[in-house]
Amino acid sequence: MNSTTGPGAGTAAGFSRRALLGGAGAGLVAGAAGGAVLGRATAAASAPAGPAGSGALGAGQVPFHGPRQAGIVEPQQARVHLAAFDLVPGAGRAELRTLLRRWSGTSARLGRGEPADEYESRIAADAGPCSLTVTFGFGPTLFDRAGLAEHRPRALDPLPDFPEDALDRARSDGDLWVQIGADDALVAFNALRVLQRQAAGTATQRWQMTGFGRTPGATARPVTGRNLMGQVDGTNNPRPQDQDFAAKVFCGADEPDWLAGGSYVVLRRIRMLLDNWENLSEDRQERVIGRRKSDGAPLSGGGEHTAVDLAAQNADGTLAVPADAHVRVAAPASNGGAAMLRRGFSYHDGMLPDGSPDAGLLFLAFQADPRRGFVPVQRKLSRGDGLSRFLRHEASGLYAVPPGAPEGGYVGQALLEG
Amino acid sequence: MNSTTGPGAGTAAGFSRRALLGGAGAGLVAGAAGGAVLGRATAAASAPAGPAGSGALGAGQVPFHGPRQAGIVEPQQARVHLAAFDLVPGAGRAELRTLLRRWSGTSARLGRGEPADEYESRIAADAGPCSLTVTFGFGPTLFDRAGLAEHRPRALDPLPDFPEDALDRARSDGDLWVQIGADDALVAFNALRVLQRQAAGTATQRWQMTGFGRTPGATARPVTGRNLMGQVDGTNNPRPQDQDFAAKVFCGADEPDWLAGGSYVVLRRIRMLLDNWENLSEDRQERVIGRRKSDGAPLSGGGEHTAVDLAAQNADGTLAVPADAHVRVAAPASNGGAAMLRRGFSYHDGMLPDGSPDAGLLFLAFQADPRRGFVPVQRKLSRGDGLSRFLRHEASGLYAVPPGAPEGGYVGQALLEG
Repeated sequence: MNSTTGPGAGTAAGFSRRALLGGAGAGLVAGAAGGAVLGRATAAASAPAGPAGSGALGAGQVPFHGPRQAGIVEPQQARVHLAAFDLVPGAGRAELRTLLRRWSGTSARLGRGEPADEYESRIAADAGPCSLTVTFGFGPTLFDRAGLAEHRPRALDPLPDFPEDALDRARSDGDLWVQIGADDALVAFNALRVLQRQAAGTATQRWQMTGFGRTPGATARPVTGRNLMGQVDGTNNPRPQDQDFAAKVFCGADEPDWLAGGSYVVLRRIRMLLDNWENLSEDRQERVIGRRKSDGAPLSGGGEHTAVDLAAQNADGTLAVPADAHVRVAAPASNGGAAMLRRGFSYHDGMLPDGSPDAGLLFLAFQADPRRGFVPVQRKLSRGDGLSRFLRHEASGLYAVPPGAPEGGYVGQALLEG
Repeated sequence: MNSTTGPGAGTAAGFSRRALLGGAGAGLVAGAAGGAVLGRATAAASAPAGPAGSGALGAGQVPFHGPRQAGIVEPQQARVHLAAFDLVPGAGRAELRTLLRRWSGTSARLGRGEPADEYESRIAADAGPCSLTVTFGFGPTLFDRAGLAEHRPRALDPLPDFPEDALDRARSDGDLWVQIGADDALVAFNALRVLQRQAAGTATQRWQMTGFGRTPGATARPVTGRNLMGQVDGTNNPRPQDQDFAAKVFCGADEPDWLAGGSYVVLRRIRMLLDNWENLSEDRQERVIGRRKSDGAPLSGGGEHTAVDLAAQNADGTLAVPADAHVRVAAPASNGGAAMLRRGFSYHDGMLPDGSPDAGLLFLAFQADPRRGFVPVQRKLSRGDGLSRFLRHEASGLYAVPPGAPEGGYVGQALLEG
C-alpha cells in the first residue's frame, strides 16, 4: 500500500487540492486546474510525463483534509460508488459523531494510500490511492433522528415531485450519503467495504449504486465526456476559474454556520431508454438535444464551446435549436441564471426483464442552493424538454454537503459539536 | 475514433497478438509477453514509455484476426462484459452465419478504434480502442438449434452438478457466449450495445454480466491481481512461455476439425460471502487459502512464486498447508496435472436484500478439455475445499471457443461452412 512514497507521489493528479482550493482566489485556480471539472481527460492531460505503467495513475492522490470536501471540484474518477445509510433505532448524536470521526479518519488514510484499520481486507493492497476521494452528505431525515432538528437548513426541504418522476423510495433519500471515487475499481470497492463495516451497529446501508466514467488516458487529448446516449455531456459546466464559480457551487452566508463553505448535492438515477433513443436517426437525436452528436457543437453553429444562439433560424425560418431541445430548456438564461456543478457518472446494472439495458446516468449536481439550482431547472425540464421522453428518473436524493475537515478534525464536526 | 493513427498506435499494449501467437514457438512467446497472462499490471509494465495522459491507454490495440481469438491470452482489461444469446425460433444455420459474420466484422473494426456501423451510437467516440477484445463461444444448445448436432464435440456435454451448486439457470448457459474486454468502461459498453443491436431478430440476450479488474497503472510495479477477498489470485496460472501451455489451453487433434486451435471456456459466477469472510481473522483466512494474505506466499514458506510444499509441517507437527486449504485441494498434483488458464474478473452488483454486497468472482477458465480441466478440479473443490464455505456458485456456463478468424473471415466459419 506504499506506492505513494515513490517519485511523483501526491502529484500525479497534476495538482493538489490544497493548491486548488486552499483559500485561493480565481488567479490561483486558473492555473493547473483550469477546466479540470469539465472532464476526466483534462486531469490526465495535466499529469506529469512518465512511463505508462509506472504506477502514475495509482499514485494520484487527493488530500481528504481541507476547506472543502474532496470529490466535488476534482476531476471525476473512472469508478464511483454512491451509498446512503440510515441511523439504526437508538443511534443519535453521539453515535453519529463517533461514526463520522471514524469515517473521516479512514477516508484520510485511504486517500494517502494507507490501510484503513483492522477492517481493511487488503483488496486494494499493492495499488496506490488512485485519486480516491470520499465525500459525505447529510439527508433531510438525519436531523430529527440525531436530535439536530433546529440545525436543519431550509434548503434541505424535500425536493418537490416532478411530473414524470418514477421514483423508487427504497433507492432514494437516506440519512447519510457517501460518494467514493477512484480510478481503480478495487480501490473504490475496498473503501466502500471498509466504510460499510465501520457503520455496523450505527447505521444500515439503505441503498448503494455504482457508476463509471472514462479511464484516464482513454482519449488522445482532453475532451468533454460522453454519456451512454453517445452525446457530449458537460460542455457548459461551471469552471473553477469562473468569477461566480464559488457562488454557484458553495453555500453563502445565508446558510447555518456549520454549513459555511459547504454545498448541496442532488442525486438523480436517470435511466436512459436506449432502445428508443438509438432507433432515432442521428439527425433527430441532435434536434432533441440541440447539439451535434459528433462534436457537441450547438445546432446554431460554431464549435463545442460556442454559446448557443437560441434565436438562430434555419433557412426555412424554423428555429435552429428546436423549441423543446434540451439545451434550450436547460439553458441558464431560461432559469434565472441557475447553475450547478454537474458531476454525473454513467451506470449499467445489467439487463432488465424486457431485455433492455438497465443503464443511464447517476446525475450528481453540487450547488449553493437547490431552490435556485436543481429545482427550477428540473421543473422546466420535466415539462418542456424533448429529451425527457427518453429518460426515467428512478431515484432521487438531496443532501447537505458539509465543508471539509481540517487535519485532526472530521466532516460534520461544526454541526455535531456546535 | 481515430486516435489509433497517432504515434504508438497498435503497440501500446506492448506486443501485438500476431507476434505473440502467429505460429510462434515458445521462444518467440517468452519475450515481450512473458507472464502477461498473470495479471493486468504486467501489461502496463510492458507498455512503451510515454507521457501519462497522452492517450497511451486508449491506443492499446489487439487485432481481432489471427489464429486464436483475442481475449484469451492477452492481459485482462479493467472492464469486462459477458453475455449469452439464444437463437430465436426459426433462426438456424444461415441466420447464425450472417450474425457471426457481422459480429466478427464489427469486432475487428471496433478493435481498430473505428466506428462499427449504422448502429454505432458514438458512446466510444473520442476514445481509442483501449485494448478492446471480443471473444465468441458456442454453448451445447447451439448445435441442435442450428442444425449442427453432428458437429457438437463430446467435451461440450453439460457440466455435472456439483454438491454446493446454487445455479440460476436464467443466468447460466446460452447458445452463444460473448466476452467483451476493454480498459475503458464506455468503450466496452459501446461494443456490447452494438453487438446486442446487431443480434436483434436472430438471437435474444439471455443474460449479461459485468466485471472488473485493476486499471493499468494502478500499481507501481507488475503484480499478480487480488480478488474481492483481498487474496492474491492467479499466481500459478499457466504462462505462455511454459512448454505445455498450448496443450493445456488449446484443443488438440482429438477435437473436431472446426475447433482446431480453439479452446473451451468455463464460466462460474461465484458470489463471495464477504460478511462471513471478513469476520475471520487474517490468520484464519490464510489457513483457509493456504497462502499469506500480504504477499501470496504459500504457508509452507518462501515467496509468492515458491512452489507449495504440501508435506511441510509446522513445529507442532501439523500441516503447514492445512488439509482443506484451497491451494492444496486445487493443486494440479491433486488433479492429475489438470490446468486451466484462469481469466477471472471481480463483479459487484450492488446490495442484496440482506444488506450484504452482491459481489464476487466471474470465474473464467480457458482449457483444452473441461473433462480434464475444470470438472475434476471442481469435483474435488466442492467436496474438500475449506474456501467453499465462503462461496456460492450462482451461475455456470460451458462454451466451445472456436479458433480465430483470418482477415476477411469470421469466427465459426469452419463450422458453418464446413
